[in-house]
Amino acid sequence: MSLVVEILSTGDELLTGQVVDTNSAWLMDRLWDLGVMVRRKTLVGDDRQDLLAALAETTGRADLVVMSGGLGPTEDDLTAECAAAAMGVPLEEDAASLQAIRRRFEKLGRTMTPNNAKQARFPRGAIIIPNRFGTAPGFRVVLGRAELFCLPGVPNEYRGICEQVVLPGVAARVGAPPAARLVKLFGIPESHADHAMRPIMDAAENAGVRFGYRAHWPEIHVKWTVPGEDAESRAERILAEVRRVFGDAIFGEGKQDLAQLVVERLVARGERLALAESCTGGLLSQLVTSVPGASAAFDVGVVAYANTVKTAILGVPAELLTAHGAVSEPVARAMAEGARLRGRATWGIGITGVAGPSGGTPEKPVGTVHMAIAGPQGTQPWERRFPGDRERIRKIAAHDALNQLRLLIR
Amino acid sequence: MSLVVEILSTGDELLTGQVVDTNSAWLMDRLWDLGVMVRRKTLVGDDRQDLLAALAETTGRADLVVMSGGLGPTEDDLTAECAAAAMGVPLEEDAASLQAIRRRFEKLGRTMTPNNAKQARFPRGAIIIPNRFGTAPGFRVVLGRAELFCLPGVPNEYRGICEQVVLPGVAARVGAPPAARLVKLFGIPESHADHAMRPIMDAAENAGVRFGYRAHWPEIHVKWTVPGEDAESRAERILAEVRRVFGDAIFGEGKQDLAQLVVERLVARGERLALAESCTGGLLSQLVTSVPGASAAFDVGVVAYANTVKTAILGVPAELLTAHGAVSEPVARAMAEGARLRGRATWGIGITGVAGPSGGTPEKPVGTVHMAIAGPQGTQPWERRFPGDRERIRKIAAHDALNQLRLLIR
Repeated sequence: MSLVVEILSTGDELLTGQVVDTNSAWLMDRLWDLGVMVRRKTLVGDDRQDLLAALAETTGRADLVVMSGGLGPTEDDLTAECAAAAMGVPLEEDAASLQAIRRRFEKLGRTMTPNNAKQARFPRGAIIIPNRFGTAPGFRVVLGRAELFCLPGVPNEYRGICEQVVLPGVAARVGAPPAARLVKLFGIPESHADHAMRPIMDAAENAGVRFGYRAHWPEIHVKWTVPGEDAESRAERILAEVRRVFGDAIFGEGKQDLAQLVVERLVARGERLALAESCTGGLLSQLVTSVPGASAAFDVGVVAYANTVKTAILGVPAELLTAHGAVSEPVARAMAEGARLRGRATWGIGITGVAGPSGGTPEKPVGTVHMAIAGPQGTQPWERRFPGDRERIRKIAAHDALNQLRLLIR
Repeated sequence: MSLVVEILSTGDELLTGQVVDTNSAWLMDRLWDLGVMVRRKTLVGDDRQDLLAALAETTGRADLVVMSGGLGPTEDDLTAECAAAAMGVPLEEDAASLQAIRRRFEKLGRTMTPNNAKQARFPRGAIIIPNRFGTAPGFRVVLGRAELFCLPGVPNEYRGICEQVVLPGVAARVGAPPAARLVKLFGIPESHADHAMRPIMDAAENAGVRFGYRAHWPEIHVKWTVPGEDAESRAERILAEVRRVFGDAIFGEGKQDLAQLVVERLVARGERLALAESCTGGLLSQLVTSVPGASAAFDVGVVAYANTVKTAILGVPAELLTAHGAVSEPVARAMAEGARLRGRATWGIGITGVAGPSGGTPEKPVGTVHMAIAGPQGTQPWERRFPGDRERIRKIAAHDALNQLRLLIR
């Protein structure tokens, strides 16, 4: 069945940019795995009128509303009061909850303030959800056409109660979860990916298959879920199609990560990598070493910002630098070869470019990056003109270099 | 005047948990500086009916609605179409925008797909907002009782257009903004910061001063706005108090950035920095070189993952490594001194530690990091035990090293 789920979060801190509501993204992701895409998410402040309006709207549209925040002990915490008002029932104190809150304070050696007793008051008829992770219990009521869960906003409390109560309830209502697949692309613009996916999507969508793009710049992630019978084999057939269409542009599937794939592949081949970075300034080394256990395939990276360093540590001939400039194919080659040789590695990568904002010329505008990979069969150089600002140029250049190495060691 | 602002974001990817809408938090923060707290934020998917409903609701309540997403080239991108439908006008192609999109594709050497032409179609009567940062222009219309801005969801495009058009418009409508101050702290836990701020906040809050924390881990940002008369001098008096309380833990104010402050200070002193990183794997080099113009103070960073590299490139005596292990004070010292000497720099920083998840021992558990700064007056080593996972340990170590250098070159 199709279950309409909305998320409602409250708290002034969410509307001032002070706190980013990561709880919602977490719950959305967990719900997607059950085949449910959240229909709408609403954030309102700690304001009685706004809260009452949002409660009426969301519970008038959805089958299930997951609300968070406003269960604290302060005067700004209005959730129980507003839910009761919307239901037309009074608030009632729950003796067991009050006792649990009292015990929690005793255990922590703190004094319970009169305010905290407020956290044991719920709309009459509410089903109370004990909170093993913190002070404020949650509760569940029926309002409008919806089942309304009111949960604390503290992330570990929110997630704990969702895992314990909300998600099992959703799973029971929607039945078997759909089969899901995720492929990760690099090196093609999103509009091209969409264009290429279109025939596959058109063929599958009327069979209830849902596709989604995930922007993980500079990567593109394409995900789909297949419901019903034979879901796994149908999801797999679509995967075969997608692989055929994108080929080498697919660098990974599922939880696979570009840097991790490259490191694992190097380790499996018994090979090592050395890096020589100029414009990326350590970004590629950082990417490679973000992988736990990277030391099994990586010994050294040199951030050679100055020409003297390119010469002294990497052995780039000074004449090359003079004749072609630091941002040039010969220098990228020499950096890659120098890294490989001095680092006693199987592979050496050299990157030199103009990340901007200054330093561009008509021949070598900002975004010009020369890269090269030196390996057992020689050195492959390539040139790119990346759009964007300094941060984007550096980031995409580092990913591009890593991706080229992936293609060489498949 | 009090301006009612709502934020509306669209995109299935925002409702499946794969993309966290950081644009909204950014805009809320910027609006807060102008004295405006956003009233409500709504997220809906790429669904015609849901979008039309959300457009009608938000523009029926607010004076200003900032909408983002749905301006891409795909069939899922429905913003212009839905805005036109809500206004009761047709979509019309804008020749200038089409030309700009065409030129952008030519410049990047890519083929423009027929889909991209869609991005030049706007509701009749819309004021088009050119996008200097990407392909899709934004636009502005009047709908319901509101001024509606429709902006691309790509963060740098969204933020660029907000800075250029949206925020100045808000500023003009709300009149004099409150005085705002922001201090940035490093090296103290948030609970300590809050405890220390409490008396200052209690004294100022009944005068209409609003305080807020911004989590920018591993930094803590504390912000306050002061309305009304003498706002600037009152904000400044609070700043003096805050400086007195936190002292050296304040590394910057306002827009100041740790890496940028260090680079600027080095350049002003005519000094240079060289880096030798092990566990941070290039993260510190990357931080330093993220600053435009870093080359004026930075020539070289060595990511010395292997002991042989510590010896060969940085000149760390092999005996030190054998006697004390790679993660030790003597090795951190030797790395810092080696970087300084070989890089012919004023300052050398060495970092060696156990970032985990494996590699910890009872004496040197995961999180143990030895760091040292070598300078004209000798070498200062220090040791930390950082909590958290690999990513957090690496990040806080890189920031800690940079912050120590800041303290030395004040």
